[in-house]
Amino acid sequence: MTGRTARRRVVRIAVSGPAPEARADLLATEEPLGIRIGGQAVSMTMRTPGDDIDLTAGFLLSEGIVTAAADIASIRICSGEQCGHGDHEGGVAGDVGNIADVTLRPGLQARALRRNFLTTSACGVCGKASIEELRVAGAYDLCSDQVRITAAMLAGLPDALRAAQRVFERTGGLHAAGLFDSGGGLLAAREDVGRHNAVDKVTGWALRDGRLPLSGCVLLVSGRASFELVQKAVLAGVPVLAAVSAPSSLAAELAAEAGLTLVGFLRGGSMNVYAGAERITS
Amino acid sequence: MTGRTARRRVVRIAVSGPAPEARADLLATEEPLGIRIGGQAVSMTMRTPGDDIDLTAGFLLSEGIVTAAADIASIRICSGEQCGHGDHEGGVAGDVGNIADVTLRPGLQARALRRNFLTTSACGVCGKASIEELRVAGAYDLCSDQVRITAAMLAGLPDALRAAQRVFERTGGLHAAGLFDSGGGLLAAREDVGRHNAVDKVTGWALRDGRLPLSGCVLLVSGRASFELVQKAVLAGVPVLAAVSAPSSLAAELAAEAGLTLVGFLRGGSMNVYAGAERITS
Repeated sequence: MTGRTARRRVVRIAVSGPAPEARADLLATEEPLGIRIGGQAVSMTMRTPGDDIDLTAGFLLSEGIVTAAADIASIRICSGEQCGHGDHEGGVAGDVGNIADVTLRPGLQARALRRNFLTTSACGVCGKASIEELRVAGAYDLCSDQVRITAAMLAGLPDALRAAQRVFERTGGLHAAGLFDSGGGLLAAREDVGRHNAVDKVTGWALRDGRLPLSGCVLLVSGRASFELVQKAVLAGVPVLAAVSAPSSLAAELAAEAGLTLVGFLRGGSMNVYAGAERITS
Repeated sequence: MTGRTARRRVVRIAVSGPAPEARADLLATEEPLGIRIGGQAVSMTMRTPGDDIDLTAGFLLSEGIVTAAADIASIRICSGEQCGHGDHEGGVAGDVGNIADVTLRPGLQARALRRNFLTTSACGVCGKASIEELRVAGAYDLCSDQVRITAAMLAGLPDALRAAQRVFERTGGLHAAGLFDSGGGLLAAREDVGRHNAVDKVTGWALRDGRLPLSGCVLLVSGRASFELVQKAVLAGVPVLAAVSAPSSLAAELAAEAGLTLVGFLRGGSMNVYAGAERITS
């Protein structure tokens, strides 16, 4: 399997320093992962290899295609040569390769392909036929989640996530997502060159582990909070999404609509709460 | 037209500070832009409104659909009600709305739709039928670009770009891309909630202004350098791509293959050169 980091020769230049120096540097690996449902290509994402089955499960959850582990019959990671188009039995099970071959439970597969992909070639926000359909209906009611989180606990989470980021320390090139319980205990941390992928790896792990909805939990992302990240949190049933940097306007709007607590600029012991402030206590 | 920022009420909490305080905050606007070619939906991107025609042109360039301004007959920005599906004459010209309605030059349109979108519903890396096709062939030969850039000039570009970022100052929530000439003069700076969009807005502007290939120029991005950003630089004929943060493994690999100079960690007067170091002089 391709590693999460790749060694590469670089030239280090300091303007007011010593002469340029060639040396080895570690880069975060970026490779495409193609996702197929029933042999039909539905998505491709540039990701850091690792946790690819979780990433695929998280993608299916984020797209509103599945809501529970039982919706997925199998996810197999294989290479292009191993997976024949439309020929599942030809795929070699394993966790090596850049193609995720998904089989959904009977009944769901045909509907998923028809509803989400074949009727449209829209992408970016994958498989949505129109702007109006951007808001995927959440399977969980966040408003009923009565969890309370202290501001002091929240303020400590970025350091906890950073401590769990093994690859970032070596490359400086990865986004991270961390899932915490209401007491601040780390449940899962994942890294990826793509922010969305890091979140999909966490929610996909939770889905496969039978943990949805993620009641009482906090999802922390290392960067900014976009509309799509809010949508992923809502679909996983997480009541609190916190970001180290700024949220967008649409992220704050959707969070308020969905009953999600949205925290931004969580750094240096302070934070801005954009929606659902009643869950944050002193 | 929707503004680039939106005002929102937030609760500011400091763990060891005064009591939580409600106040107004400015957020970077995020809204979907749907892109249609000949009435056919081909893409949707979450972007900060503004420069939408440039963004659309840059998208078409990045996807390998167009290579020059003459390939585009028209780009009209309209709202869903104004643009009828497949009915161009029904669209109202203007620059207001969340749909970009593209008409390509005769001959190109049918080919573009057939080649890039209708045969596949892959997305993420939009419209590519398979992993093997990820590498879009560049229209320009970067290897023949003999420009030389001094390290001292490069080191000053992040500050110049930051000074040109009007919205970031107020929201902290935007990525930026800047295009500079070989002497460090700023040609264009664009901001967006999406890093890729910021670059597409710059290259789309250059395409429409008849400036391709961008020989002798430097493209600077505020964050990390991914495979897709390298691809966008190559397709615009820019010989030097610089990023404030880390590049990915695939970004460095593609840059070396394409003859692009790739600079990473450009901050504090120093930098790492991952490919094409011969263009950087002391």
